Amino acid sequence: MRGTMQALVKDRRGPGAVLMEVPVPECRPDEVLVRVKATSICGTDLHIYRWDEWAEENVVTPNVFGHEFAGIVEAVGVNVVNVKVGDHVSGEGHIVCGHCKACRTGNAHVCPNVRSFGITVPGCFAKYAIVKGTNVIQNPKQMPFEIACLQDPLGNAVQAVLAGDIVGKSTAVIGAGPIGLMAIAVAKACGAGTVFAVDINPYRLELAIRMGADAVINSSDVSMADALHEVTGGDGVEVMLEMSGNPHAIRECFAAAASAGRVSLLGIPTKEVSLDLARYIIFKGLRIEGITGRRMYDTWYQLKNLLELGRIDLNSIITHRFTLERFEEAFALMASGQCGKIVFLHEE
Amino acid sequence: MRGTMQALVKDRRGPGAVLMEVPVPECRPDEVLVRVKATSICGTDLHIYRWDEWAEENVVTPNVFGHEFAGIVEAVGVNVVNVKVGDHVSGEGHIVCGHCKACRTGNAHVCPNVRSFGITVPGCFAKYAIVKGTNVIQNPKQMPFEIACLQDPLGNAVQAVLAGDIVGKSTAVIGAGPIGLMAIAVAKACGAGTVFAVDINPYRLELAIRMGADAVINSSDVSMADALHEVTGGDGVEVMLEMSGNPHAIRECFAAAASAGRVSLLGIPTKEVSLDLARYIIFKGLRIEGITGRRMYDTWYQLKNLLELGRIDLNSIITHRFTLERFEEAFALMASGQCGKIVFLHEE
Amino acid sequence: MRGTMQALVKDRRGPGAVLMEVPVPECRPDEVLVRVKATSICGTDLHIYRWDEWAEENVVTPNVFGHEFAGIVEAVGVNVVNVKVGDHVSGEGHIVCGHCKACRTGNAHVCPNVRSFGITVPGCFAKYAIVKGTNVIQNPKQMPFEIACLQDPLGNAVQAVLAGDIVGKSTAVIGAGPIGLMAIAVAKACGAGTVFAVDINPYRLELAIRMGADAVINSSDVSMADALHEVTGGDGVEVMLEMSGNPHAIRECFAAAASAGRVSLLGIPTKEVSLDLARYIIFKGLRIEGITGRRMYDTWYQLKNLLELGRIDLNSIITHRFTLERFEEAFALMASGQCGKIVFLHEE
Amino acid sequence: MRGTMQALVKDRRGPGAVLMEVPVPECRPDEVLVRVKATSICGTDLHIYRWDEWAEENVVTPNVFGHEFAGIVEAVGVNVVNVKVGDHVSGEGHIVCGHCKACRTGNAHVCPNVRSFGITVPGCFAKYAIVKGTNVIQNPKQMPFEIACLQDPLGNAVQAVLAGDIVGKSTAVIGAGPIGLMAIAVAKACGAGTVFAVDINPYRLELAIRMGADAVINSSDVSMADALHEVTGGDGVEVMLEMSGNPHAIRECFAAAASAGRVSLLGIPTKEVSLDLARYIIFKGLRIEGITGRRMYDTWYQLKNLLELGRIDLNSIITHRFTLERFEEAFALMASGQCGKIVFLHEE
Repeated sequence: MRGTMQALVKDRRGPGAVLMEVPVPECRPDEVLVRVKATSICGTDLHIYRWDEWAEENVVTPNVFGHEFAGIVEAVGVNVVNVKVGDHVSGEGHIVCGHCKACRTGNAHVCPNVRSFGITVPGCFAKYAIVKGTNVIQNPKQMPFEIACLQDPLGNAVQAVLAGDIVGKSTAVIGAGPIGLMAIAVAKACGAGTVFAVDINPYRLELAIRMGADAVINSSDVSMADALHEVTGGDGVEVMLEMSGNPHAIRECFAAAASAGRVSLLGIPTKEVSLDLARYIIFKGLRIEGITGRRMYDTWYQLKNLLELGRIDLNSIITHRFTLERFEEAFALMASGQCGKIVFLHEE
Repeated sequence: MRGTMQALVKDRRGPGAVLMEVPVPECRPDEVLVRVKATSICGTDLHIYRWDEWAEENVVTPNVFGHEFAGIVEAVGVNVVNVKVGDHVSGEGHIVCGHCKACRTGNAHVCPNVRSFGITVPGCFAKYAIVKGTNVIQNPKQMPFEIACLQDPLGNAVQAVLAGDIVGKSTAVIGAGPIGLMAIAVAKACGAGTVFAVDINPYRLELAIRMGADAVINSSDVSMADALHEVTGGDGVEVMLEMSGNPHAIRECFAAAASAGRVSLLGIPTKEVSLDLARYIIFKGLRIEGITGRRMYDTWYQLKNLLELGRIDLNSIITHRFTLERFEEAFALMASGQCGKIVFLHEE
Repeated sequence: MRGTMQALVKDRRGPGAVLMEVPVPECRPDEVLVRVKATSICGTDLHIYRWDEWAEENVVTPNVFGHEFAGIVEAVGVNVVNVKVGDHVSGEGHIVCGHCKACRTGNAHVCPNVRSFGITVPGCFAKYAIVKGTNVIQNPKQMPFEIACLQDPLGNAVQAVLAGDIVGKSTAVIGAGPIGLMAIAVAKACGAGTVFAVDINPYRLELAIRMGADAVINSSDVSMADALHEVTGGDGVEVMLEMSGNPHAIRECFAAAASAGRVSLLGIPTKEVSLDLARYIIFKGLRIEGITGRRMYDTWYQLKNLLELGRIDLNSIITHRFTLERFEEAFALMASGQCGKIVFLHEE
Repeated sequence: MRGTMQALVKDRRGPGAVLMEVPVPECRPDEVLVRVKATSICGTDLHIYRWDEWAEENVVTPNVFGHEFAGIVEAVGVNVVNVKVGDHVSGEGHIVCGHCKACRTGNAHVCPNVRSFGITVPGCFAKYAIVKGTNVIQNPKQMPFEIACLQDPLGNAVQAVLAGDIVGKSTAVIGAGPIGLMAIAVAKACGAGTVFAVDINPYRLELAIRMGADAVINSSDVSMADALHEVTGGDGVEVMLEMSGNPHAIRECFAAAASAGRVSLLGIPTKEVSLDLARYIIFKGLRIEGITGRRMYDTWYQLKNLLELGRIDLNSIITHRFTLERFEEAFALMASGQCGKIVFLHEE
C-alpha cells in the first residue's frame, strides 16, 4: 500500500497540533498495520496538546499522537503470530524491550527501555497505525470500536482497583474523570464494599452515580477526609483510589484511609506533596501502591473478561463523539472537564 | 429466665432425632443467650440425622444439633462486649481456644482445640441457643432472619471462591447444592470470568441458572472434563470449586483444571480418591486449597458486605420453609436432593 | 505477695525520670506477674525520658515505663492458660481489645482501642511487671535474658523486612540504630540479595558490618541515592528499609528505590516530608508499607524461630549493660548514638 | 565454523545412548551457540537413558540429550541482544512460545507450546549447544562451570521452597536426591524453621546433613508421618517439600503436614496415588502447589543471588565428575542412588 493519510500531528514544541497528510507507515516484520476505527483522548494527550513541563521533557516531535485505539488489521509482518488481516484489535501502548530484569519478572510496565506509542513513537490519531505484534490485543468483532478503544485506560483502572484486596472493602475513588469513573465500575464488579466517589465537579459526580457509585461527595463543600470518616463510622475507608493528582486531595486521601488500609496512587501531581508520614502511613500500617500502566498482560485478561462478559458497562462514560477534524473542539471540551470520555470516530 | 424449651435433639447414636422439651440453657459470663428465629439445614446436619461413620466419630449425644441460625439476643454475659439485648445476631460455629498457634496466626478455622456448635456442644435447633460472645455476628435489623441464618454456609462459599485470584478467571462450580449455588453468586459478584455450574440434578442446575451461572453442564450426560475443555477452547478452567465430594467428580475436576489454575476442595469425599498427581497437579503447576470453615473473621466481613450491599441475593436459594415440628419431612426432602436450602422458621 | 519494689518512674510531664519505690502490682484473673530479669531501652523510651511533643500527646504520667523485657513468671491469674509459674517469658506490648474489626482480621497491631505497656499502662523498668495473659511470649530457658528482652524490637525488624518479598532482592537499611542492625541480620537470614547499610555514624556502620551488611555507605559523605544507584548498576535498590525517620533520608530513600521495588517505612519523622510522588512512587510502580508494631502473633513465631535456631545472632547488638540505678548514664549514652542496644540487667 | 563434534545421542527408542560425531549445529538469528564446559545429569536424563513409559511418550529421537549446562558463548545470532561472544552462560531449558496466555501472564513454565532443550530439541551433552537467545542466563566469570551447570535444578528447588511462606516455618524435604539436597540449602538460606530431611538411603542422609539439615529421618526404619509429628510436638510440619515421587512417601507427606500448612509436590510419581482428601487436605486447610520447571525468570534472579552471594554453597552436592566418554559408568552410578549430583566436565 503506502500513499498518504490524514493524521493529527504534534508538530511543534508548544501548544496545539495540526491535522495534516503524512505517509502511511510501513509495517516491519514484527509489526502490524491497523486501520484505525475509533480512538479516545487520554489526559496525557491533553498534556501533549497544551504542552506543559511533562510534555517538554517526554514527548518527541513531530509525532502522530494518541494511544487509545481500536481498529482492523490491514497488514501483518512476517514474524508476527496469532494475528491476521481483518482481526479487530486494540493495543498496549508500552513498547518494552523484553530482555531487561523488569520485563523478565512480570514488571514490564516499568521497563526502563520503554518506548511509548503516541508519545515517543507514532500513535493512533490517524487513519492507520503501526502496532508491535507482541502488543496487539484481540477484540471480539461484536465489540463496538468506541468501547474497544477504552481498554487502555480501563486497564489503568483495573490495575488500580486490583493492586490489593477489594472484596467487601469500603472504597473511595478520588477524582471522577474517565479512569475514576471506570474504577467505580470495576470496584463494583469485583465485589467492593460501599463505593464512594469524590470530586468537585457536579457533572462528573452525576456520571459517578450512573457508573454505580453508592454515594458521592462534593469535596468543594466539605473536607473529604471528614466526610469519609463520618460515613464509615469513624473508621476511614479501606481502599483509597487516588485519581485526581491534586496535592490537597492526595493529603486528604491519606487522612481518609482506614488503618491497615490501602492507597492506590494513579493521578499525577505536578509538584511535590507534603505528607505526615508518621500519622497517616506508619502508625496506620498503610500500604501504598504506585500505579502506572497496566500489568502486561495479566491486567488485559482481567479487563477483557469484565468487559466482554458484561460485568462492567462503559457506555455511560462516553459522553461525546467527534470526527478527527473537530479535534480543537474536542480538546477544548476535555480541558473544561464537562465531559466523561471523548471519542474520535475515524471516518472511512 | 430458665424453664424449658422445645429442641430438636440427637438423642441416640443411630439414625433419627427427637423433638423434646429441654431446659433453657444458662448464659455464662462470656456467653450470649439468643432467641432463635430461623435456622437452616446443613449437609452436616443430614450426616448427623442419618448417622454415618463421620457422625459416629465426631458427634456428641445427646445434643441439640443445628448450627446455622439467626435470632435476637435475649441475655448477655457480664464479660461480653459489643453485644446487647435486642441485637439481631448470627454466630460463627467454631468455638476456638484463642491461645494456640493456629488461633494466634490467623488460622483459627483449624484450631486443634475447637469445639463445634451443634456437633460437640449444644446448637440452634431450639427456641434458645447459647453462643460464645466472641463468636457473635451482628446483623442489621432489616435483614430477614431466613437470609441471616444462611451466612455460615455463605462463608464457606466465600472462602472457597476467594482462596485465590478470581477476577476475570473462568470458574466452574462442581456440585450445585446450597454452598455451590452460593459460590456461583459470590464468584459472579467478585468479577469472575465465565461461571460454569456442573451437577447431575436438573433441579439444581435450574437453580444454578437462577443464581447467575453463565452456563450449566449436566455431567450425567457428558464427561465434565471433556465438556469444560471444550467450552474453554481446550484451555481448561482456571478456578475449579469442588463442592460435590464425589470421588469421580473430584478426578474430573483435576482433569478439567487449566494449567497454573486453582482448585478449591470443599466437598467431603467419604473415601480415598486416586489421583494422577503427575499429570494433573505437578505438570500443570496447579494450586490446591483445602477449604474448611471460614476465616475468622475476615470471611465474615467479606460476606456481610456482599450480602448487605446487595452484591449477592440469596432469596432464590431458599426453596422450602418448615416449622421445627416438621423436621422429618424437611430431612427427607434434604436427602432427596430436590431442594435448594431448607429453612426452619422458629415459632414465637 | 505485695509489698514495694524499685521502679523507674516517669513522674513528671517534662524531661527526666526517677527511680523510686512503688507497690508491687496485683495480678488480676487474666494477667501474669513477671519477675523482670532484663530490659532494653527503645527509642520510644528516649522520647519519654526527654519528653517531646509525641510524649506530651501519648504518654500517661506517673507511670513505670519500659516495654522490652524478659523475666520469670511469678504468679498467674486464674483465667490465664498456657503459662505457669517459673516459665521464662517476654511479652507483646500492644494490649489490644480483641473484638474490633482490626483485631478480628489479623490487624491487631493497629487496634484503635490499644493500650500500650510502658506508655499508657505500667511497664517493665521495675522489679516486677504485669503482663496480660494473651500477650505473654514463652522463652526457652536456655535463652539469655538479655537476648530475650530484644524480641520486641526484633519483631519490628522482622515485620519491616518481611512486609514483601526479600529473597534475592537487593536491600538497603537506612539508619543503623538497633532496629536497623537487627533488620540487617534478618534480611541476611531470610535470603536477601546484597544488603547495604546507610548511616552517618561510623560507630553504627561498624556495627552494621558486624551484623552482616555486605556494604556500608556513610551518607554524610555522599548522596545516598546516588551511591545506591551506583552500586546497583543504575537500577536502584529493590527493598528499602527506612529506619532513620530523618526527612532528608526518607526523600533519598524513595529516590534510591528501584522500579517495582518496595519501601518499608518504620522510622518516625517528627514533621511532614515533601515527596515527588509522581517521579518516585507512581512512575516507578513502587509499593510502600507503613510498619508499626508486629503482626500479632505471626511475627513473633517467625522471629522466635530465627532466633532460637541461630539463624540470627543478636549478641553484637548489645554494646552496653547497666543496672537500673545507672539509668541517667544509660539514657545519656543512648542520646549520644554511640551505642548499639543498651540493656538493663535487673538485680536480684 | 561447522564441522562435526562429539555428542551423546539418544539414537534409539529403547535403553542406552551412543557417543558419536554429529554436525556442529548452526546458530540462527535468534539463537546463541555455546561451547559447553560442564553439564550435569538430571533424573529426566536417566529416564531417557533407561527409556521408560514417560520417555516413550515425550522424547524425540534421535536427539542429543542433556539440559543442565554451563559454557562460553561461541557465536551470537543477529537478533540476540545482551549476550556477546565470550560470555559465560547457562540457559533455561523450556523454550516457550511467548505469545500464549500462559506466557503473557507469568506462567511461561506451563506454556502449552513448549519445546524442551535436550528432550524434544537438541540439548547439551555435546561439545556445542544451541540456546535460544531469550533463554540465555549470564554467569559471572569467576563461577566454576561445574557449579554454574547446576542452576537449572537449583531453580526447581528454589521454586519448590518459595511457593509459599518459609520464614520460621518447620520444613521437611522428602527425598534427598540432588534437588532435595539443594532445597535443604535453599530453605536454610531463606530463613526456614527447623529443616528435616527424610530418605531411605544413608548415603543421601549423610549428604543432607552436610547441606545443613537440622535433623534427618531414615524412613525405612520408621513411619515418616509418625516421626515428623513426634519431633514437632504433634503439630506436624508446616512446609512439606515432596521430592521423592514415591507413592507411599507422598501419602505420608500429606499425613505429616501441619494444619494450615503447605505441600510442594515436585517428585513425579509414575502411577496414581490414593489420598484421603478429607482428612489430610480439606479438614487441615492445606495448600498444595504443583511444581514444574522454574518461574521465568523470577526464580532465576532469586537463585543467582543466593548462589553468587554465597548464601548457599553447592559444592558438597557434586559427588562425582566424569568425562562424557564415561557416560555408561555415570548413568550406572546415577541409577544406584549412591551419589549426589554427577557432573560431566567437557574436554577441551
